[in-house]
Amino acid sequence: MNFSSKLLENAVEEFGRLPGIGKKTALRLVLHLLKQPDGEVQRFVQSLTTLKEQIQYCRECYNISDEAVCEICQSVKRDKTTICVVEDTRDVMAIENTNQYQGVYHVLGGLISPMEGVGPSDLKIEGLLERIRRGDVKEVILALSATMEGDTTIFYLYRKLKEFDIQITTIARGIAFGGELEYVDEITLGRSILTRVPYERNVG
Amino acid sequence: MNFSSKLLENAVEEFGRLPGIGKKTALRLVLHLLKQPDGEVQRFVQSLTTLKEQIQYCRECYNISDEAVCEICQSVKRDKTTICVVEDTRDVMAIENTNQYQGVYHVLGGLISPMEGVGPSDLKIEGLLERIRRGDVKEVILALSATMEGDTTIFYLYRKLKEFDIQITTIARGIAFGGELEYVDEITLGRSILTRVPYERNVG
Repeated sequence: MNFSSKLLENAVEEFGRLPGIGKKTALRLVLHLLKQPDGEVQRFVQSLTTLKEQIQYCRECYNISDEAVCEICQSVKRDKTTICVVEDTRDVMAIENTNQYQGVYHVLGGLISPMEGVGPSDLKIEGLLERIRRGDVKEVILALSATMEGDTTIFYLYRKLKEFDIQITTIARGIAFGGELEYVDEITLGRSILTRVPYERNVG
Repeated sequence: MNFSSKLLENAVEEFGRLPGIGKKTALRLVLHLLKQPDGEVQRFVQSLTTLKEQIQYCRECYNISDEAVCEICQSVKRDKTTICVVEDTRDVMAIENTNQYQGVYHVLGGLISPMEGVGPSDLKIEGLLERIRRGDVKEVILALSATMEGDTTIFYLYRKLKEFDIQITTIARGIAFGGELEYVDEITLGRSILTRVPYERNVG
């Protein structure tokens, strides 16, 4: 691209580094911000700076938090004996949105991925074991993505967790609700036949 | 969405204000930036702040520029007698990328759009007339989008410009190069038959 301004080119390059943002989109976003009043841009920039400077990670579950211990871990309404292990804070938000879960979380901060150089020691696994060692935990739910990295991480965690006297579960896999059978991929369909459940359980 | 952090929510809201960026994308971008080292985020923020503070608009053509007069208007290689009128700096970049134009530009900063409350006085039209009054201009090319707003603006400019002793042209409209006839919309196809040109002109 033929930029008429080095400053513009710089800003577009920075925006273009964001995941999923190409050069053209980056240019559109930067030009949009350039058209906004000074105050708007300042607020945009300030929100990022403040976030980066003041953000904390809950010392219990490692979820993003404004305080040393997050709201969920602080809440007396949550069942501390059940820990749902997830990859990152987006998964916590997704599960919270379902209103189906009353336990607490543990945010790993990633998945084991030899391809990307992420090993078990890069994840918050020791913190999870520590919480279990303290003794109140009865169940650990492994709610990780149904990908190679997710499966690898589940396998690793399972070997670590089975030494404890707790129940280890994973979230159900199968046909999504509303999913039409003929469009479901072969592996999911095949597995969902093999792991079929009594009718009463799926209605409950 | 159920944010665990007010700071995170703020930053996501600011990103979500950008055009074409929904809440989910905004969250993905903010979490990506949060994972980056402090220096990276600072550089991102700095590039925007510097751009906003130091950017100038060329006093000749109103294109975005790092100096009072932009590189194109400064260049002795450019033909100052031909002015190409465009909507914004992205159009300048697009035309520059073709390497087919040796004249100078005039950036209107928008198009006339009653729907969005943009009138002629919001655009840099007076500056254009001023440049023509100074006397060197021989041709004005109206290179605006083939939309309702573009056509309205072309019509308005044409009425203002026809008082001067200059040639007024618009960029050619028709079937795009590489375009398959059967997929071209009816209006373009119909118009391109009506405005057909001698074979020799299109090969040249």
